[in-house]
Amino acid sequence: MLGGNVFGKNFVLVSFGESHGKCIGAVVDGCPAGLELSEEDVQRELDRRRPGGGGISTSRVEMDKVEILSGVFDGYTTGAPICMIVWNTDVDSSVYYEIKDKPRPGHADYTARVRYGGFNDFRGGGRFSGRVTVSLVMGGAVAKKVLEEVLGVRVEAYTIKIGGVSAPEVSDEGIAERYGNPVRCPDPDAAARMVKVIEKARSQGDSVGGVVECRVTGLPPGVGNPIFNSLEGDLSKALFSIPAVKAVEFGSGVKAADMWGSSHNDPFRLEDGKVVTESNNAGGILGGISTGMPIKCRVTFKPTPSISKPQKTVDLSRMEEVFIRVKGRHDPCIVPRAVPVVEAVVSMVLVDHAITLGLIPPVLRR
Amino acid sequence: MLGGNVFGKNFVLVSFGESHGKCIGAVVDGCPAGLELSEEDVQRELDRRRPGGGGISTSRVEMDKVEILSGVFDGYTTGAPICMIVWNTDVDSSVYYEIKDKPRPGHADYTARVRYGGFNDFRGGGRFSGRVTVSLVMGGAVAKKVLEEVLGVRVEAYTIKIGGVSAPEVSDEGIAERYGNPVRCPDPDAAARMVKVIEKARSQGDSVGGVVECRVTGLPPGVGNPIFNSLEGDLSKALFSIPAVKAVEFGSGVKAADMWGSSHNDPFRLEDGKVVTESNNAGGILGGISTGMPIKCRVTFKPTPSISKPQKTVDLSRMEEVFIRVKGRHDPCIVPRAVPVVEAVVSMVLVDHAITLGLIPPVLRR
Amino acid sequence: MLGGNVFGKNFVLVSFGESHGKCIGAVVDGCPAGLELSEEDVQRELDRRRPGGGGISTSRVEMDKVEILSGVFDGYTTGAPICMIVWNTDVDSSVYYEIKDKPRPGHADYTARVRYGGFNDFRGGGRFSGRVTVSLVMGGAVAKKVLEEVLGVRVEAYTIKIGGVSAPEVSDEGIAERYGNPVRCPDPDAAARMVKVIEKARSQGDSVGGVVECRVTGLPPGVGNPIFNSLEGDLSKALFSIPAVKAVEFGSGVKAADMWGSSHNDPFRLEDGKVVTESNNAGGILGGISTGMPIKCRVTFKPTPSISKPQKTVDLSRMEEVFIRVKGRHDPCIVPRAVPVVEAVVSMVLVDHAITLGLIPPVLRR
Amino acid sequence: MLGGNVFGKNFVLVSFGESHGKCIGAVVDGCPAGLELSEEDVQRELDRRRPGGGGISTSRVEMDKVEILSGVFDGYTTGAPICMIVWNTDVDSSVYYEIKDKPRPGHADYTARVRYGGFNDFRGGGRFSGRVTVSLVMGGAVAKKVLEEVLGVRVEAYTIKIGGVSAPEVSDEGIAERYGNPVRCPDPDAAARMVKVIEKARSQGDSVGGVVECRVTGLPPGVGNPIFNSLEGDLSKALFSIPAVKAVEFGSGVKAADMWGSSHNDPFRLEDGKVVTESNNAGGILGGISTGMPIKCRVTFKPTPSISKPQKTVDLSRMEEVFIRVKGRHDPCIVPRAVPVVEAVVSMVLVDHAITLGLIPPVLRR
Repeated sequence: MLGGNVFGKNFVLVSFGESHGKCIGAVVDGCPAGLELSEEDVQRELDRRRPGGGGISTSRVEMDKVEILSGVFDGYTTGAPICMIVWNTDVDSSVYYEIKDKPRPGHADYTARVRYGGFNDFRGGGRFSGRVTVSLVMGGAVAKKVLEEVLGVRVEAYTIKIGGVSAPEVSDEGIAERYGNPVRCPDPDAAARMVKVIEKARSQGDSVGGVVECRVTGLPPGVGNPIFNSLEGDLSKALFSIPAVKAVEFGSGVKAADMWGSSHNDPFRLEDGKVVTESNNAGGILGGISTGMPIKCRVTFKPTPSISKPQKTVDLSRMEEVFIRVKGRHDPCIVPRAVPVVEAVVSMVLVDHAITLGLIPPVLRR
Repeated sequence: MLGGNVFGKNFVLVSFGESHGKCIGAVVDGCPAGLELSEEDVQRELDRRRPGGGGISTSRVEMDKVEILSGVFDGYTTGAPICMIVWNTDVDSSVYYEIKDKPRPGHADYTARVRYGGFNDFRGGGRFSGRVTVSLVMGGAVAKKVLEEVLGVRVEAYTIKIGGVSAPEVSDEGIAERYGNPVRCPDPDAAARMVKVIEKARSQGDSVGGVVECRVTGLPPGVGNPIFNSLEGDLSKALFSIPAVKAVEFGSGVKAADMWGSSHNDPFRLEDGKVVTESNNAGGILGGISTGMPIKCRVTFKPTPSISKPQKTVDLSRMEEVFIRVKGRHDPCIVPRAVPVVEAVVSMVLVDHAITLGLIPPVLRR
Repeated sequence: MLGGNVFGKNFVLVSFGESHGKCIGAVVDGCPAGLELSEEDVQRELDRRRPGGGGISTSRVEMDKVEILSGVFDGYTTGAPICMIVWNTDVDSSVYYEIKDKPRPGHADYTARVRYGGFNDFRGGGRFSGRVTVSLVMGGAVAKKVLEEVLGVRVEAYTIKIGGVSAPEVSDEGIAERYGNPVRCPDPDAAARMVKVIEKARSQGDSVGGVVECRVTGLPPGVGNPIFNSLEGDLSKALFSIPAVKAVEFGSGVKAADMWGSSHNDPFRLEDGKVVTESNNAGGILGGISTGMPIKCRVTFKPTPSISKPQKTVDLSRMEEVFIRVKGRHDPCIVPRAVPVVEAVVSMVLVDHAITLGLIPPVLRR
Repeated sequence: MLGGNVFGKNFVLVSFGESHGKCIGAVVDGCPAGLELSEEDVQRELDRRRPGGGGISTSRVEMDKVEILSGVFDGYTTGAPICMIVWNTDVDSSVYYEIKDKPRPGHADYTARVRYGGFNDFRGGGRFSGRVTVSLVMGGAVAKKVLEEVLGVRVEAYTIKIGGVSAPEVSDEGIAERYGNPVRCPDPDAAARMVKVIEKARSQGDSVGGVVECRVTGLPPGVGNPIFNSLEGDLSKALFSIPAVKAVEFGSGVKAADMWGSSHNDPFRLEDGKVVTESNNAGGILGGISTGMPIKCRVTFKPTPSISKPQKTVDLSRMEEVFIRVKGRHDPCIVPRAVPVVEAVVSMVLVDHAITLGLIPPVLRR
């Protein structure tokens, strides 16, 4: 598809809008009828995407209030496409005109210019801004509600690494409280250290990367349509739509390369008459199909490319090498704000698969 | 899609066939007309997927001779769908009937049984066998030829790690000779050590995993359709269709989590009047669009799940825990044979994108 | 797809909004970058969809002013998704609450209720209202402009029959002036008689059907991707998305059933060194691919189902047979207002095909 | 999609093979697991496509024996893609080399040459031969069985007009016996007259067209996903993939243009506590969704373009006008052989919709 802004087969998300345009929007097509849905449901997820405080985020004031334009009637989804909008406010585009011809290293400025022949809206990065993830979160809010209400599936993402600081083994309690600290890490001690490293990077005009893990519980075994619509395939495609993602791993992930089969294979056993595995190197997926164990994936984010340190680039209008300093208001680490985005895209993929397999009916009865 | 065996938008691959069925087949729909194509072109790629010798592979004798059934006339593609078949031979299904109810740990036996209600062809793993990658290689052979002839793009994969043994920085010469050693590693010394670790694993009835890297050169900047049809998204989805893949990384990959923006960002500079980057942490992709630098991705494979050591599982017919020994003929490391498969799926994704952007016309003139 | 509100492969239209909801909206994804596009361009097409005067239309005052929310920057398309909105005004939903449980014959009230479990927005017919064609016209306005500017293709629809009154053979001049009369018929005499028959139907609380013909000129030969993405297949699918369509014909259409091969076959001959056909029973398409002759299709519309005469139906809340009179404001003939809608959907299909074949590049250079 | 040989969303048909190539093939992806399926099930439908005797058909001896290559194990579908092949025999391509540069009027010779740059396999019309419908019938055989066994839906097509001879109102008995006469007409008297008109055309080196009607019974109300995946939209797209189709109508069809709303609207009433309509001008579909009444569509076929009378065309190698006589073996009327093809494509569309709505589960339990 030439456009590339439509995702999914049976549960479809369409994303539109630019960072400094009128709005960021999403259309969800294929949501079952009969889901109780309000703007509050979507707002709750959007709020989790807002800066978590602690002085580690952008100073751009993004209220990000959602307005539902269609597809909901009398408090329930109608089965018609659901259009949701967040109107942009507090936009200051002036700095972008200055660097219009000077692509910021690590950003999509250069590639977008080539791909769209210079017609792309470069203000604030346009479609390549982290703001576009607002559309993912809006679509994900609907998906998440369907998953929880119909199947009892929970999708929970959390930060496990930032700037070299790792969280130890995470607990259920820690996960439940993940949105209680600004970095969305289940471990309060690690969270405090992560905040420190972010502050350090910011103070130096620099930025740091990190890792978000996502855990899905409650998904029955047998979900997935290999070979091309495997859970890993569809999830990874969705996860790589989030800006700044450099790696996606399932279960053992990159560690699998150093393991031997006898320790990597997860032995099957019975637990309360149910088939489970003793370990979960599979990350809850075998052959592209869910095992019934928790799905586990990890997503690596690169350090925010917008840094205030001077950087070398090329002035494309004169074709000469220059140095730039990126002004504007940026997060020195986007990992914390990516947490609800990861939950959103994972939720959408799972709803799509569940509808395809008839696990979620086209009408949810009251 | 309930089926999941159709991949691509404009250049489409359909995969069919089972490990112990009559054949493995592929249909390519959307190949431009006018490509000179013979069975030899496809066979060359299939031969690269065959065991590389050195006693490190399965003893199943797979001749894997391709037959083109349609879509080629007088030596050129016609624009019609190209069906390619490899007829299965040397099939021995007896061992699979013994373990029919005892899912092998690390395999899709259990999940396939749940997903398909026990109707799946379990012989040799059926659709979940590594043999299914024959269809990927056949489709990829066509894609690779289109890419090379029309755009001069080269897609080269090679092994960089097996069983804990890593290749040092690889050279162009090494890459050119990669198929000259049984593990398809560009570094002969590392290759020799990788062979040793595989032999060790095999002698212990065990298996090892590893990493394949893929490098794409010659792709112009501006290819990719974000946000959902980003190069990373489409490539990762394709790569996860290969059995045993646990992680996909681009450029800096998982290392990005520990880096700071100032060292991760790739500065732009001019080289012979062309915009290039000094480093390539981006892996040749920014914002889902090619930069013109080489695309670099890494794919982690888990150790072959089929090992002869006894393993714990559940007899599903009696619902009781049992031990099994997996017989049959298996590769103690699938990494070497995955190398041409990685090239195949990467090639197909790139052709699809190139057609979408009009870089490859529907008819290649003689 | 469970949703069904996404159309196209490379040029994609997403439709959302309800008759009595906040708005009718469209997202176009895949429009090439660099098309000069303003709200006026879209408004011009929307205005053609407004009642043509002459007292033959609904009294609902629909200003239908388009607002472009995204995808256009500095007067040019950016390659990003284009969201367009028409905010609903002058909505009076009261009559619909009265007949909520009494499905109007000929309307989708009953089938929508079954399909969406009663959750559908029934006010004004919701998604099943003719108002939804506003989204088609908005998407079509963009497509039409691309077709004309890049390929010089003209898509012109016009009324050839209403309520039994047929237009004679139409002239180029008549077609050029089609929007000059309220029924959009190229023949002024026939137009006058058509107006009369509509007035007669209205005065009797009844309605009439008719036929719209569409002619496409300037399309080069060789466009179409059989067998399933034939021009006829894709055009018919698009045309049947317009409410009230009962038949779609190409070229000779239903008359072909009574013809003999020797008179139906269009002989090829040379004209100015170009291959043309002497007749055009093919309707400009052979084997699903354009011949270079004008594409001709005809679309039959049923009489507006909303009539004020009493009609028999079933009260679904009590499951008993009742009579209803449909109040509300309705067109006694929807054919005239369908004319620009036919142009819109035909244009979108052709742009999609032209992009797929590389006839329209992803960036239109200034 | 550049290829165009893939149809469907959840139940997918892939068609491949050429008239004079090695085979005609079909891959069905998305068929539920657990359907009892044998080659006989498919053969039965293929046999209905064979000439019906009576000397009114081609003399090409097409045995059309199906071979299932994948997707069926132990007599049941596995959920894996089902590849079916009919090997071509009795091929005589010599006459096609003679007319290679002289496109036959009414055929796709010219458009295919332009579209595929002359690389298309022109022998026997290649992909544009009626033989390609073998792939539709194979896919339809699977779909038909799913529909009947899971939902009790019956899809029955029959000839209602040939060469100007119409069948009167058809009876259930007549439909049940439709394959008992060579023209597949439910009315024996009309059938006899249709045979005569075909014989007359053949004796004059000419051909005739006709109309196939299709009736679907047993489909519950509520099936269809408007606006773009309406039943009419998806059915018409599928029907236009059959060569020689010029028109598709639903219910009242083209007659709707002359009707008034009061007589076109189908009043709702109760029958045995069920909502039905008194008439069925809707053709069983309102708003793109099934009403529960029989679906009725009509498909007009043009006269076979291959006639032995001399015809004017252009020699494309010399660019001069010439006359040709089409030799080869052709049906003077393709309508009778199109009857099972219509059933096939209608069945595939309905299964696809039924899967999407969860009416057909991914596994059919024994």
